[in-house]
Amino acid sequence: MPGNPGGDDCAAEYAGMTSESIGAAREVTVSGTTLDDYTDRYAARIHGMAQSEIRALFAVASRPEVVSLAGGNPDTTALPMAELGDMFAQLLRDNGPAAMLYCPGQGDTRLREEICRVMASTGIAAASPDDVVVTVGAQQGLSLLATVFLDPGDIVLAEGPTYVGALGVFQAAQARVRHVTMDAEGLIPEALEAAIAESDTPPKFLYTVPTYQNPTGVTLTDRRRAAVLDICDRHGLLIVEDDPYGMLAFDGEPPAPLRARTDDGVFYLGTFSKTFAAGLRVGWVLAPPAVRDKLVLASESQILCPSAFTQAAVTRYLSTMPWRQQVKVFRTLYQERRDTMLACLAESMPAGMTWTRPGGGLFVWADLPHGIDSKAMLPQALAERVAYVPGTGFHADGGGTGQMRLNFSFPTSERIREGVRRLAGVIDAATRLRDTFTA
Amino acid sequence: MPGNPGGDDCAAEYAGMTSESIGAAREVTVSGTTLDDYTDRYAARIHGMAQSEIRALFAVASRPEVVSLAGGNPDTTALPMAELGDMFAQLLRDNGPAAMLYCPGQGDTRLREEICRVMASTGIAAASPDDVVVTVGAQQGLSLLATVFLDPGDIVLAEGPTYVGALGVFQAAQARVRHVTMDAEGLIPEALEAAIAESDTPPKFLYTVPTYQNPTGVTLTDRRRAAVLDICDRHGLLIVEDDPYGMLAFDGEPPAPLRARTDDGVFYLGTFSKTFAAGLRVGWVLAPPAVRDKLVLASESQILCPSAFTQAAVTRYLSTMPWRQQVKVFRTLYQERRDTMLACLAESMPAGMTWTRPGGGLFVWADLPHGIDSKAMLPQALAERVAYVPGTGFHADGGGTGQMRLNFSFPTSERIREGVRRLAGVIDAATRLRDTFTA
Repeated sequence: MPGNPGGDDCAAEYAGMTSESIGAAREVTVSGTTLDDYTDRYAARIHGMAQSEIRALFAVASRPEVVSLAGGNPDTTALPMAELGDMFAQLLRDNGPAAMLYCPGQGDTRLREEICRVMASTGIAAASPDDVVVTVGAQQGLSLLATVFLDPGDIVLAEGPTYVGALGVFQAAQARVRHVTMDAEGLIPEALEAAIAESDTPPKFLYTVPTYQNPTGVTLTDRRRAAVLDICDRHGLLIVEDDPYGMLAFDGEPPAPLRARTDDGVFYLGTFSKTFAAGLRVGWVLAPPAVRDKLVLASESQILCPSAFTQAAVTRYLSTMPWRQQVKVFRTLYQERRDTMLACLAESMPAGMTWTRPGGGLFVWADLPHGIDSKAMLPQALAERVAYVPGTGFHADGGGTGQMRLNFSFPTSERIREGVRRLAGVIDAATRLRDTFTA
Repeated sequence: MPGNPGGDDCAAEYAGMTSESIGAAREVTVSGTTLDDYTDRYAARIHGMAQSEIRALFAVASRPEVVSLAGGNPDTTALPMAELGDMFAQLLRDNGPAAMLYCPGQGDTRLREEICRVMASTGIAAASPDDVVVTVGAQQGLSLLATVFLDPGDIVLAEGPTYVGALGVFQAAQARVRHVTMDAEGLIPEALEAAIAESDTPPKFLYTVPTYQNPTGVTLTDRRRAAVLDICDRHGLLIVEDDPYGMLAFDGEPPAPLRARTDDGVFYLGTFSKTFAAGLRVGWVLAPPAVRDKLVLASESQILCPSAFTQAAVTRYLSTMPWRQQVKVFRTLYQERRDTMLACLAESMPAGMTWTRPGGGLFVWADLPHGIDSKAMLPQALAERVAYVPGTGFHADGGGTGQMRLNFSFPTSERIREGVRRLAGVIDAATRLRDTFTA
């Protein structure tokens, strides 16, 4: 199949195995596996960037007989491919020469206008297209903010657990991550105050995914949003608000983004990866003019400019196709799968196990029965043909050993049922093993 | 026009005004123009990254009445848009769900195989798809190599003049650039030896565009390639070979890439921006396994993964469409325009002016008559409705004041004739002004 970037079911499952979705790309250093003539030549930052030893395990997770609850993929089979194909073809016929050319480093003007309309619908009303920088997914937006703000040794505050891709960025920047404890209402204001107080140097910013967080599915409540903003304002702490999931609401609309409540000191990261198509790699940063100029320079240095074609595709999609209706399709699909997952967990998981009840997004976060190590258990799970991401991948400090992330957006309800059933068996066996040795 | 990323002639001309093409994005610091509340918070690297004061001038160059010889754009109007549109549509129908999803950080396997076939045709015969990392254009490849190898204060050697986007990368990495003098046969081996000897610390690598260089159009001769490889080998100096233009040959095939002569110590950067479509942003790095792993980690941190869609589009293009025939179309078109430019320069330029005769690629490099400053002359040129890039943009050391880069790939032959005619008048006036003041 020419042009196939991994198009069959097996490969699509494999496509879930990026560092984003395996969730643990940087937790354990592997060394000595490859003869490396360049060791003496690397930059200092490279010594902190390491591949995970569980990457190898995830090669197994890509096999079709394994039910992967480990991915972080949207279900792109829900997109109307024939209509999109016609749209892409028409785009090339109408504006091909420009879509196939370089574009300004800040991104296409029309797209930045559309992005402001999208943000306005989430409550960010006063944003100007001039203050939007188009990026290769929100990941590049975060990487650019790190380039602009982080010196080696700087402190970044982040939820514990947090998005694994953010940990990768902070590690590459040689920053120190300090986790702020969360509960079912999101990060705890008192813990944020404490983290600021305990920092030996003022933290450069707070990185947060306040809505349907990756990996926990938890949402920062309205009351806590006000408290967090107040604390950050009092301490002069900048906020990086990462909001990929805000539109994927199942149980009513989420609280307005932090950026909707203030235009001062909050950098907002958005993406079309979950509302349209991750494979186009179109995201954005909203930042005040002085910072925006620096983000554009940093982006030109990294990639020259984002793809004019994928920007044009997103612009045309937003302006000519019923994209809000498509978001509803994703919401309905994922809500059904979340319900399935929650019901199956309640049905089959042993006592002592708890999990979050996400109001939207892609993930459930589970606490294993006491004494069970999710990473140690992974080979057994893979042997039983089910995959998840161990909790340690989402921590910079070794935390998360008793936890795991489960994805419900990509596998079908049927696969979720089977996956949770298998997982329950694995946990049950691990619990019995634990009891044997601690009896 | 929905989805238009700048589709009319004016905007397409504007699309040439990225930092790559204006060629001078970082030469002069502008400060104090924006009230900046974040000054105290930026990372150290940001203080070396500055926008050019001539950026504002180039807003003028985007006007349709201005003939821009300043761009660095391929002529994408030569692509068969209807056929490409059909191909894109079919791709989505066949493999849409995977093309719209995340993919592995290293890039799509099938594409990496196709890339090895492309490289084999240039003489790089033994490359393995495992050693290829797909990037957002060759720019990201260079940025990743900088991430992996460059610490602040490190020395990088580069031709003088060199690609402006490379200077941006090295500046962001806080490296020190040392230029190696070139002549009509490319960089001078003795000057390379001298630059190594004069470095207070061993240079991390030599960055070179050996074939149809940007900005000079000059090609490193076969004999000199051997000499450069020998020098680098003796001194243990790594080479970053950037080869975007090698397939755009007008006067017979160019010498084989450096990487074709050794697989030791040469990192090779390739791109489809000039052979297919810059707007898809698909390039690659070829690197040995140990380095490749680090490049993948660095890329995942920057962008998570490249666009699965644009990778699938390039893969399908390479495997199902007559892409080598299309490269010939570009070659023929650009050769005709080069010939036009060289003929017009010979016809109308004043005595004391010289220029290169590129055997391929996109650019002519011109030396102005003694005492004429190309940057100082730019406002006058724009007033006369012609644009070029002053030579200072391609130097890290203030060099290039008496030089300019002229692009012949994007403007039509008719526009080139008119542009060179206008430019000759501007240079003539500047020469007379010079004579008045030095008489």
